[in-house]
Amino acid sequence: MNTFGTLFRVSIFGESHGKWVGVTIDGCPAGIELSEQDLQPDLERRKAGAAGTTPRKEADLPVFVSGVFNGKTTGAPLTIVFENNNIRSADYEALKETHRPGHADFVLNKKSGGFNDPRGGGHSSGRLTVALVAAGVVAKKILEGIKIHAHLAEAGGTADIEAAVAKAIEMQDSIGGIVQCSITGLPVGIGEPFFNSVESVISHAVFSIPAIKGIEFGSGFEAAAMRGSAHNDAFMDSEGTTKTNHAGGINGGISNGNEVFFRVAVKPTSSTPQEQHTWNHATQAVEAFTVKGRHDLCIALRVPVVVEAVTSIALADLFLVSKAGR
Amino acid sequence: MNTFGTLFRVSIFGESHGKWVGVTIDGCPAGIELSEQDLQPDLERRKAGAAGTTPRKEADLPVFVSGVFNGKTTGAPLTIVFENNNIRSADYEALKETHRPGHADFVLNKKSGGFNDPRGGGHSSGRLTVALVAAGVVAKKILEGIKIHAHLAEAGGTADIEAAVAKAIEMQDSIGGIVQCSITGLPVGIGEPFFNSVESVISHAVFSIPAIKGIEFGSGFEAAAMRGSAHNDAFMDSEGTTKTNHAGGINGGISNGNEVFFRVAVKPTSSTPQEQHTWNHATQAVEAFTVKGRHDLCIALRVPVVVEAVTSIALADLFLVSKAGR
Amino acid sequence: MNTFGTLFRVSIFGESHGKWVGVTIDGCPAGIELSEQDLQPDLERRKAGAAGTTPRKEADLPVFVSGVFNGKTTGAPLTIVFENNNIRSADYEALKETHRPGHADFVLNKKSGGFNDPRGGGHSSGRLTVALVAAGVVAKKILEGIKIHAHLAEAGGTADIEAAVAKAIEMQDSIGGIVQCSITGLPVGIGEPFFNSVESVISHAVFSIPAIKGIEFGSGFEAAAMRGSAHNDAFMDSEGTTKTNHAGGINGGISNGNEVFFRVAVKPTSSTPQEQHTWNHATQAVEAFTVKGRHDLCIALRVPVVVEAVTSIALADLFLVSKAGR
Amino acid sequence: MNTFGTLFRVSIFGESHGKWVGVTIDGCPAGIELSEQDLQPDLERRKAGAAGTTPRKEADLPVFVSGVFNGKTTGAPLTIVFENNNIRSADYEALKETHRPGHADFVLNKKSGGFNDPRGGGHSSGRLTVALVAAGVVAKKILEGIKIHAHLAEAGGTADIEAAVAKAIEMQDSIGGIVQCSITGLPVGIGEPFFNSVESVISHAVFSIPAIKGIEFGSGFEAAAMRGSAHNDAFMDSEGTTKTNHAGGINGGISNGNEVFFRVAVKPTSSTPQEQHTWNHATQAVEAFTVKGRHDLCIALRVPVVVEAVTSIALADLFLVSKAGR
Repeated sequence: MNTFGTLFRVSIFGESHGKWVGVTIDGCPAGIELSEQDLQPDLERRKAGAAGTTPRKEADLPVFVSGVFNGKTTGAPLTIVFENNNIRSADYEALKETHRPGHADFVLNKKSGGFNDPRGGGHSSGRLTVALVAAGVVAKKILEGIKIHAHLAEAGGTADIEAAVAKAIEMQDSIGGIVQCSITGLPVGIGEPFFNSVESVISHAVFSIPAIKGIEFGSGFEAAAMRGSAHNDAFMDSEGTTKTNHAGGINGGISNGNEVFFRVAVKPTSSTPQEQHTWNHATQAVEAFTVKGRHDLCIALRVPVVVEAVTSIALADLFLVSKAGR
Repeated sequence: MNTFGTLFRVSIFGESHGKWVGVTIDGCPAGIELSEQDLQPDLERRKAGAAGTTPRKEADLPVFVSGVFNGKTTGAPLTIVFENNNIRSADYEALKETHRPGHADFVLNKKSGGFNDPRGGGHSSGRLTVALVAAGVVAKKILEGIKIHAHLAEAGGTADIEAAVAKAIEMQDSIGGIVQCSITGLPVGIGEPFFNSVESVISHAVFSIPAIKGIEFGSGFEAAAMRGSAHNDAFMDSEGTTKTNHAGGINGGISNGNEVFFRVAVKPTSSTPQEQHTWNHATQAVEAFTVKGRHDLCIALRVPVVVEAVTSIALADLFLVSKAGR
Repeated sequence: MNTFGTLFRVSIFGESHGKWVGVTIDGCPAGIELSEQDLQPDLERRKAGAAGTTPRKEADLPVFVSGVFNGKTTGAPLTIVFENNNIRSADYEALKETHRPGHADFVLNKKSGGFNDPRGGGHSSGRLTVALVAAGVVAKKILEGIKIHAHLAEAGGTADIEAAVAKAIEMQDSIGGIVQCSITGLPVGIGEPFFNSVESVISHAVFSIPAIKGIEFGSGFEAAAMRGSAHNDAFMDSEGTTKTNHAGGINGGISNGNEVFFRVAVKPTSSTPQEQHTWNHATQAVEAFTVKGRHDLCIALRVPVVVEAVTSIALADLFLVSKAGR
Repeated sequence: MNTFGTLFRVSIFGESHGKWVGVTIDGCPAGIELSEQDLQPDLERRKAGAAGTTPRKEADLPVFVSGVFNGKTTGAPLTIVFENNNIRSADYEALKETHRPGHADFVLNKKSGGFNDPRGGGHSSGRLTVALVAAGVVAKKILEGIKIHAHLAEAGGTADIEAAVAKAIEMQDSIGGIVQCSITGLPVGIGEPFFNSVESVISHAVFSIPAIKGIEFGSGFEAAAMRGSAHNDAFMDSEGTTKTNHAGGINGGISNGNEVFFRVAVKPTSSTPQEQHTWNHATQAVEAFTVKGRHDLCIALRVPVVVEAVTSIALADLFLVSKAGR
């Protein structure tokens, strides 16, 4: 299933080497101003081009298929597609029998009984995140007065990200990173106890992004070593402002009005230029191979805007649910 | 909303100081052997009693309300309730105006417009995890051949958990911990790309447990500092066995047949015997107070079986979905 | 699955001859006044007792398990149970091998692999409608200003219902009927085009009631023989008041502010005192048999309040969704 | 919301006068052969062209956007779009202030706060049923061995449909009809008691089709006047074959292995060439007007294949759910 949300339902479709990738938002309220230009800033942030990113460049021009009329959403399902115009499928022919380590090639082949589209990762490609970013822009518009900002805090184990990327290029090996995300302006009372806690819903959305392997809210893993008297955030006024914010703005799964923040671990790009070994289904042996194709040495550079997008999608859904009296 | 799952739908109900807490499993297959005794081992693991746990003790005798006939599930909704027989509501009278730091009292009050049941945390109480554990036992029965095991790996910042608890008792301050969970026997192909990745669904379930603030799969946050050539897990045979397991058994959100494992950060119990300061809504000032009632100094001791339970619930749902050809 | 709704989610559990039957409402807004007495009028309307109804009488005293505090809903899951205190399971022993025509015995046996609870129809019993009626009372409270009223318009093919029941008693054969339901005060704009049309959602809910075999909105089947110029309801003012109401208050699946009304066909009670023939799985032959147990000669007498209940549940859900900006 | 289904989730998007209309199937199993040609027969059946249908003709060439590779489904979301190539928006300019009786113009305007796309009914147009038909073809492929057939049984009140259409043309007034649908080969045990009865799920899907105002299963409304001894269908063998089939193949909401059949009432096309009266929001008075544009005098002629499609979608979903052990 590739659908997320209860009231603001986002579903994505498309493959890396298909004609289009796209997204449908079912449940988008009517009357929201929306133009192609509104999407550009976030689409630009996601784009390749910087050192450490893939030479595959896409125009990423959004096409509004439905749900927008006279520059405003209509309340009908909102579908946006992006053309895939920079495809080099031949790069992948060699990999039919050699499932790349770290990639979904092997599991998709098994799961689909061999019917998956293996070109460029098929539906599991990071290409699909362009659709998430588009939906994120719409979600942000619903979250009026709420600011969601993510940035790359570390790459390759250091906060000096430029240096980390330079070293990755020098070593010709991929690296990962840590993305930090902050949400301000979120009102008290978003989220539900137990199954729809803010942490549950955000983590569900964030782990939808390829390459994410960890998430922690507030003090996160450090909290595990703290004492209660140090960890507890004392309330300082009737609005719930807390003296400290170890909880990351969430008590019992529900927003308490303070800043919500979390950190996300991004693994190194699975496609590294280094020679690797893996099982070759044709020769029935472990063999050396080198990934061809065009890839990001540090995919983490392009992840923050995607984290912002899925977080916005998750919050927009919780926000609409809460408007209904929950 | 307090419902989780698509085909194996679990919903919990009840309050800390109500008459019963319970769980309904909607979508439980027919023909599964199930007796009160089957639930005992996991219920025992969750129970208080050890050093560092609350003196509030519950009999925790499951009552099968529906969905079981002649010792087997019928396929109809399966409801199990537990009596709350050790209630001391008076303990909480003092806290009406003083929302305890770290607890959901404040946010629930705001969210519900003041209509929440504040006694013992009401519906947000850890008491409800008894219902999750019961559902987990049923989920485990669906996951034949799959072993899910969680244990407390660290408490109060150390792997010597006994020492950590002794120190917490000595200091009279609560502590947190790290729970580690391992899943073996999971077949290849469970989970979906993007929105229903194994990490998405497990993290959603795990963050439903009160006090959880972080989760990482495989190498997790350490992966963020690794190089791709070191992180990638080489496939060694046609079954997908990998040489290393930095991915924690999940590629592209889908199980690859290797061990799935993850670590979970549990914050220190919000109720610490230490004097704390917080806003008093009656006096309109920050005031000192001390939590009364009976609480766990190290709730993390009781969390592993709950992590197992919600992980089992999440996997049972993914497993049934996958049986349907997904 | 036995769950209905997106935001106002109702799930029912229990069996005819189990200890309790019950309902959980997940998503009930906080602050709604609710007492056992509030439920009595509708529970009374559903009760047996009149001529033509079963001699099995239940006290039908609702027990609030969770979600109500100080006489108001808390926003947490609201669970209500009813004891089954008038059970005569022996009546059904004889039917183990003889699946009663018209009943779910045969299909449940096949569907569950023989694991279903066959006593009194198990989970499929009309007894479960007591839980629907309870949920309906809560739903009605959400639908402030909206009146939903159902009544029995025909029984046994005539509008003289008393005569019809008298004849059924005389013939000792069960009869069916037509229930008519009217909804006034529904604002414009409830429902969605296509998959969540008002007709879709109401019919889904209404066909959940055992014994319902047809539904028609507005002119319904008669519309099929009308001309467009006669069927179209002319708008008479800016509020959408229509001159006629052949559409039954719904255009394009969405409420237009006029009265919504529909008619429902109730088949005759499957349990008739008449001798019947059916397959005997023990003797492997078609044999004569007579239904024992206590049954309604005209179940339709007790259906109107259940139609009201499920309609209210369906509308409460649409209403909350619409409050969220849909 | 415009999404239907639990495991086989269908969502449609697009507007009458937009660039494309389309459908996404999320949850389509992998390995199903699917070509543009497979869709042609049903698309042809839906097309206009016959006497009594609209002169607006669409090429209706399906474009597979995603989810199909080498002629087979991949298990990824399957998106199909159709170009709208025969648009005459000018026809609708005059209707901005005059909401056509029977149409969704008025309710959509109110529901969306005036932001809906009013051209040709926007998203509520019957044009969208081309997307339903496409999804229906895929659904039918999942329902191997199950035959779903719908036909027009009556039009304008008579079984002589040719005569009815001739008369409608002569009178220049639109007419409705009755569609009959039969399902053979459905195994025992599809559907669930209460909320997901076969009748609930099929009626939900069928009322998604514009212009449908009634549905009855088996003897339907006639059953309301029958006696139980006459209505009950005696089982004749261990497979559940019944002597009669008044129940339409469904007991207690679950398929019993016999033919399932139902009848559907289609109202006359709202767009009739006859002069009508309705409220003019500009002049604030009831005024005469005539619908321009190109319309079907007897839309019921084109409905059977759409009924087949949505019924197939509904059953495919129930079928996959049942494969999962429900």
